[in-house]
Amino acid sequence: MSYIEELQQLLTPKQVSTNETTLEQHGRDEGYHPLSLPDAVVFPASTEDVQKVVAFANERRIPLIPFGLGTSLEGHVIPYQGGISLDLSLMNKVLDVRPQDFLVKVQPGLTRTQLNKELKKHGLFFSVDPGADATLGGMAATNASGTTSVKYGIMRDQVKDLEVVLPDGKVIHTGGMAAKSSSGLHLNGLIVGSEGTLGVITELTLQVYGIPEAIMAGRATFPTVQAAVDAVTMIRTSGISIARMELVDARSIQQVNKINELHYAERPTLFLEFHGNEAGLKQDVAFAQEIVNDFGCEELQFELDTKAQAQLWEVRHNLAYAFIHGSPGRKMMVTDVSVPLTELAGAIQDTRAAIEKEGLDGAVLGHVGDGNYHALFMIDMKDEEEVARAKRLNEHIVHYALARGGTCTGEHGVGVGKAIYQRQEHGAAFEVMKAIKTALDPNGIMNPGKIFID
Amino acid sequence: MSYIEELQQLLTPKQVSTNETTLEQHGRDEGYHPLSLPDAVVFPASTEDVQKVVAFANERRIPLIPFGLGTSLEGHVIPYQGGISLDLSLMNKVLDVRPQDFLVKVQPGLTRTQLNKELKKHGLFFSVDPGADATLGGMAATNASGTTSVKYGIMRDQVKDLEVVLPDGKVIHTGGMAAKSSSGLHLNGLIVGSEGTLGVITELTLQVYGIPEAIMAGRATFPTVQAAVDAVTMIRTSGISIARMELVDARSIQQVNKINELHYAERPTLFLEFHGNEAGLKQDVAFAQEIVNDFGCEELQFELDTKAQAQLWEVRHNLAYAFIHGSPGRKMMVTDVSVPLTELAGAIQDTRAAIEKEGLDGAVLGHVGDGNYHALFMIDMKDEEEVARAKRLNEHIVHYALARGGTCTGEHGVGVGKAIYQRQEHGAAFEVMKAIKTALDPNGIMNPGKIFID
Ligand SMILES: Cc1cc2nc3c(=O)[nH]c(=O)nc-3n(C[C@H](O)[C@H](O)[C@H](O)COP(=O)(O)OP(=O)(O)OC[C@H]3O[C@@H](n4cnc5c(N)ncnc54)[C@H](O)[C@@H]3O)c2cc1C
Ligand SMILES: Cc1cc2nc3c(=O)[nH]c(=O)nc-3n(C[C@H](O)[C@H](O)[C@H](O)COP(=O)(O)OP(=O)(O)OC[C@H]3O[C@@H](n4cnc5c(N)ncnc54)[C@H](O)[C@@H]3O)c2cc1C
Repeated sequence: MSYIEELQQLLTPKQVSTNETTLEQHGRDEGYHPLSLPDAVVFPASTEDVQKVVAFANERRIPLIPFGLGTSLEGHVIPYQGGISLDLSLMNKVLDVRPQDFLVKVQPGLTRTQLNKELKKHGLFFSVDPGADATLGGMAATNASGTTSVKYGIMRDQVKDLEVVLPDGKVIHTGGMAAKSSSGLHLNGLIVGSEGTLGVITELTLQVYGIPEAIMAGRATFPTVQAAVDAVTMIRTSGISIARMELVDARSIQQVNKINELHYAERPTLFLEFHGNEAGLKQDVAFAQEIVNDFGCEELQFELDTKAQAQLWEVRHNLAYAFIHGSPGRKMMVTDVSVPLTELAGAIQDTRAAIEKEGLDGAVLGHVGDGNYHALFMIDMKDEEEVARAKRLNEHIVHYALARGGTCTGEHGVGVGKAIYQRQEHGAAFEVMKAIKTALDPNGIMNPGKIFID
Repeated sequence: MSYIEELQQLLTPKQVSTNETTLEQHGRDEGYHPLSLPDAVVFPASTEDVQKVVAFANERRIPLIPFGLGTSLEGHVIPYQGGISLDLSLMNKVLDVRPQDFLVKVQPGLTRTQLNKELKKHGLFFSVDPGADATLGGMAATNASGTTSVKYGIMRDQVKDLEVVLPDGKVIHTGGMAAKSSSGLHLNGLIVGSEGTLGVITELTLQVYGIPEAIMAGRATFPTVQAAVDAVTMIRTSGISIARMELVDARSIQQVNKINELHYAERPTLFLEFHGNEAGLKQDVAFAQEIVNDFGCEELQFELDTKAQAQLWEVRHNLAYAFIHGSPGRKMMVTDVSVPLTELAGAIQDTRAAIEKEGLDGAVLGHVGDGNYHALFMIDMKDEEEVARAKRLNEHIVHYALARGGTCTGEHGVGVGKAIYQRQEHGAAFEVMKAIKTALDPNGIMNPGKIFID
């Protein structure tokens, strides 16, 4: 009997698939890393199911790769050593909403849009929004963040408790429901961002927020990227409470215009959003308006109406897909460094020069309020020389950021793509990370080949 | 040659003290836990000094206890197994201020008031404020928080990078200067709150904030604690941006009045503070005013002037010391649970009943915006029966909180006093914490007998 048949007996036959299409869906992500198939895809329906599969894999030393929606970009979910892809999509329920405690308990396969639909009924929302509609388990596992992190924080800031199945099959809770705690070591923070290398998240208790009284969204175009970034720095240091602050360069707008038949000015653009009470927001918006004008803003549009806001944000949200859909046959590479705010203008300038030097067609955009920006380009994976140029560019951008106190990945995570920079970024601390990995997963079954290489 | 003489050669003679007074100062804290002396107190002046001492202690298997200012409350710094108390007071410099990045780099022996004095020159402030003037190293090691955490977060939220000397003498950096990162395991969060059991913090990079445009402080008295807590819940769920929200009961005010010759109404009191822009703050304050009035507020005072605000906060800040100075010969026990907000009113009610049942004289106060409250009483450590009643009360309060998703310590940390509840609170996760402790400190030299007992 093959191990796959044993798994089918352990759960039910239809929870274990070796269907070719299913295997392929679990052998890739949304980035440029090459395909590699799992032996099987398993769909657990409960924590007990997960425990069974984990214990089985641990005993047989079979690689086990948790899978949310596969929207990650650095090969995180790709089973380069084969094994079992553990797809959590059946575990997608909202288990509890505690509006007065600003807490919600969910299963890991729930997506953020599904969660927000439920929360809206209570006047609440979940703040973290990676561009893709990811699962909350995947978002916790990668420590995702997004446009609103400049105000509400990153995924790690929202996680109050995780239920985790460890490689030995034991179930732990990493936190609790108190607003704060100084009890014991901070396992919440350790599991968040561990990318399935330490255990499987089977339940999450998350902090949520009240929908603000007033929201104002704005779009400001500038003559140069430099002017836009200078405005960002000034807004950040002015004391204005900003909820979103996104930079999109001219090349990005051009692509969205082309694919979506829109007519926005093809200029470096800042998208801004303010959340607050009505009076405070008015004062903040007026001040921000002054600042962008001081930095040569050419066109300024503000929207208070929800529908108009959604339209305004459309350009930003459609960006990656405009490149993907506009470049059939090519794969997306997205760099992802974050640097201290004072280094941001220089970094973006350097990146632009490096893109030109490599002769690539790349857009620059990012969550600039956090010093986090991306260069995005579509590459022809069959053109070895182009792939080499793209990788060289990625490496150049990472080295530039690391030399200035930045990080090789602001939000997408390590996977395989950034594993090669771990030692350089973390130095001796990387050995400590490896010691923790070994202590929790001595047989190395959890998502092998990710983060902890060499 | 004794090991103390060897230490004197390793550093300089005056950096190693066995003076009786010095030993005693390092053999106690501000709580009720009994005295126990170190063999010697060592004063490192640099990271290199720390490395030398740590390597020496590790080789000889000598307990090593980092010491900030000894203001902790659960026996954290008390050398119950003897050994070396490592006092970081010589390492007290501000190393770098980066105003535009909202970052500051400091040595661990610097206190928060020293830091704030320096930051004020740049229009900045550091947000975390435990009642005592603690060191930043000690605050990171205990994951301290305080009155402003409801808005700005706890110590763990402010730490961007730590330089840490590990038990094997290696120096690591746990983070970086980027506003966010998804690179590697979150060692920042792991070291924060580890109470000197994993390594010695020798440098901290911390997030700081711009001093807000407008600050308004308020004091509201209520007929009952219940009414005050109900007002807290309503303010928290109303969307009002509140910076501080402190409850102090009638017994507390009575004590401060008595010791400081003040004449505040001896009623349950909420201290509130709002930070924001002028217009927003005005709207928030008006709304908060409505709410407290709805809950039967008897007396309401608001202050915009800095000096008047300092006076208003005086009562809250002098509280613990009013009890300490008013009870010569007695020691302070402070409980420290945190519960979900919806459990707060019930918890405080239960605590008040339990205090009465045990016939103790206790005040109730707390950072109620975080569901964190303290019962504070002065005990005669020579009266065994009174000590037993106090310990029973503490235990009762902890069990009540744990049964409702709360934590045994919201901010003071574990030390020895809360070590007995670690297994109950964390369950199987406690084994994971112990595995990490063993991986990093295999010889168990770092602050032994704290957190990880049994
Ligand atoms: C167009 C586009 C835009 C994006 N924008 C952003 C952005 O703004 N910010 C951002 O942070 N990311 C962004 N991403 C990346 C991606 O959306 C995030 O990394 C997201 O968190 C992945 O979620 P997922 O559910 O798809 O996880 P997957 O891709 O399925 O898995 C990601 C990792 O998490 C692990 N994992 C998944 N579920 C679990 C679990 N239950 N337990 C343990 N481990 C688990 C996997 O093993 C893998 O290592 C973007 C991606 C795309 C395609
Ligand atoms: C009146 C009063 C009010 C208080 N109010 C609050 C409050 O509101 N919030 C709150 O959180 N706490 C409060 N505390 C507790 C105390 O102030 C905090 O725990 C504070 O963080 C301790 O700092 P310290 O410098 O005195 O550290 P210490 O007491 O010297 O040490 C505390 C712990 O940290 C470790 N440590 C110290 N320095 C280092 C280092 N460099 N590297 C590694 N480990 C180190 C020690 O080994 C010990 O385990 C209060 C205490 C008092 C007396």
